[in-house]
Amino acid sequence: MESAISTLVTTFAKCSRGKESLDSKSFQKLVEKNLGGVMEDTSNTSAVKEMLKGLDDNSDGKVSFEEYLNLIGYVANSMSQRKTGCNPDAS
Amino acid sequence: MESAISTLVTTFAKCSRGKESLDSKSFQKLVEKNLGGVMEDTSNTSAVKEMLKGLDDNSDGKVSFEEYLNLIGYVANSMSQRKTGCNPDAS
Repeated sequence: MESAISTLVTTFAKCSRGKESLDSKSFQKLVEKNLGGVMEDTSNTSAVKEMLKGLDDNSDGKVSFEEYLNLIGYVANSMSQRKTGCNPDAS
Repeated sequence: MESAISTLVTTFAKCSRGKESLDSKSFQKLVEKNLGGVMEDTSNTSAVKEMLKGLDDNSDGKVSFEEYLNLIGYVANSMSQRKTGCNPDAS
């Protein structure tokens, strides 16, 4: 589990190239390369821009580490619901 | 990254035995077995109880999945600060 958390931290650091936030382009890359298997429309630029807007609590047009953790929470929640069978018929 | 998130979900599910929340005992086990390398006092029962209190937003004495995600966020934040060298001298 520690290495799992570490992977999340490293992925952010790599995509932001060590900066504090992901700009629109690096967020796009992160989502497309890393979440294509669990989310839809990850290669659709305007869909990912909408996602960024939804995460961007302070409306600075970027995704901070805290905002990124909210995305992870969202993905984890949806995985958890699938695994516990809340939506057994959902594809 | 998807498998990292999946690991977090599975760890919770295993420790809660499929239930919605971790009670005090299963939280203790989760922390001790999975976070001993990145946190202090994980085998100290009263320290872990204090941690549970800090996470327990709805004060039901248990740690829900959402509350568990806050713990992950906390650990990720502290790892991130170490990696980006905000506290290069901290042990």
